[in-house]
Amino acid sequence: MLDPDRALDELARASKLPGVRGIYMGTNIDNHDLDDPLFEPIFTRIETLGLPVFLHPLAPIVGGSRLQPFFLNRLVAYPFDTTIAACHLIFGGVMDRHPNLLFVLPHAGGVLPNLIGRLDHGWNAIPAAKHSAQIPSAYLHRFMYDTIAHSKPMMEFIISQVGVERIMMGSDYCFAVGYDRPVEVVEQLHLSSEQRKMILGGTAAKILKI
Amino acid sequence: MLDPDRALDELARASKLPGVRGIYMGTNIDNHDLDDPLFEPIFTRIETLGLPVFLHPLAPIVGGSRLQPFFLNRLVAYPFDTTIAACHLIFGGVMDRHPNLLFVLPHAGGVLPNLIGRLDHGWNAIPAAKHSAQIPSAYLHRFMYDTIAHSKPMMEFIISQVGVERIMMGSDYCFAVGYDRPVEVVEQLHLSSEQRKMILGGTAAKILKI
Repeated sequence: MLDPDRALDELARASKLPGVRGIYMGTNIDNHDLDDPLFEPIFTRIETLGLPVFLHPLAPIVGGSRLQPFFLNRLVAYPFDTTIAACHLIFGGVMDRHPNLLFVLPHAGGVLPNLIGRLDHGWNAIPAAKHSAQIPSAYLHRFMYDTIAHSKPMMEFIISQVGVERIMMGSDYCFAVGYDRPVEVVEQLHLSSEQRKMILGGTAAKILKI
Repeated sequence: MLDPDRALDELARASKLPGVRGIYMGTNIDNHDLDDPLFEPIFTRIETLGLPVFLHPLAPIVGGSRLQPFFLNRLVAYPFDTTIAACHLIFGGVMDRHPNLLFVLPHAGGVLPNLIGRLDHGWNAIPAAKHSAQIPSAYLHRFMYDTIAHSKPMMEFIISQVGVERIMMGSDYCFAVGYDRPVEVVEQLHLSSEQRKMILGGTAAKILKI
């Protein structure tokens, strides 16, 4: 059951705890997308608190029974759910209404950086899609992305699209789809040592105000 | 209602018509995925006929009500549905059982080329995902891809991953998400004139045996 008032109470409590530097939130909440008006007061409060929001798929139902076999509920439904969340944040106006909110997208942004051209084209061509103040790609810099792409060329492509300053090392520890050696993944990318330092911790320290 | 016997009859009829060079098929059939055993005799027949299969999303339900707003049922659900179809063809063993079947994936492969590293990692790490004879990326060459990525860098990335010989020009004519000038899209890619000719028609002539 959704209870935004209790969520606001919990936000007030947790944000005062020592060491709290960000908010963790599902890519959907009980199958409600993040542009549901129910969540408006919560985003307003988080924006006021100045905390970044780390999204993660929780119980994604996207794909339903079609993604049950072969572990596709994790391998495919997770990046899909993250992408749907980002679309609702963009097209649904959350990013426009809260210009200081910053979201971290797991699994290298789902497939948002890959579909962004298609989303831009839709925004230009389809009146129903022209529902945000700016073209979708203008919001790419409102998100941060981790390194869990499981592909060096894919990761380098994403960096080329969103900028190295928007990337933070991810591990996906302790899950089977995670990296055993997440630092090595970063070290193998075609980057300067300064850029590697940003990804390995510098950027995280900045957005978490450590 | 699914009726594979009538599909086989229609296949026998249509494949004899003048000019028929391929089969058009949904990425799901009435919400059944393409590795459903119901479709085995149909794929066996298509393989015997030596016809390539062009897939396209038809009534995708992936994402359900969450992808209804903002035209996301086309912008996002279509590439998702194509990706789910490719996953079932690979993990569900259709590609293994029919080594001569060739599938054309619309919209630059959905997001299959983008998630392939994650799929490979899953195949290696998760027993439930190790359900095909080879690692998923080994099947990338069993698919063809069109140019409907709506992004020059994305398209060049896909070409670098799957090979220029697997790309054919797409237009998505007559849809609003299509290209007004599909040839120009190909001309703007960083390719040799020989490679452009392949994408603009040479490769299609080859697989359609024209």
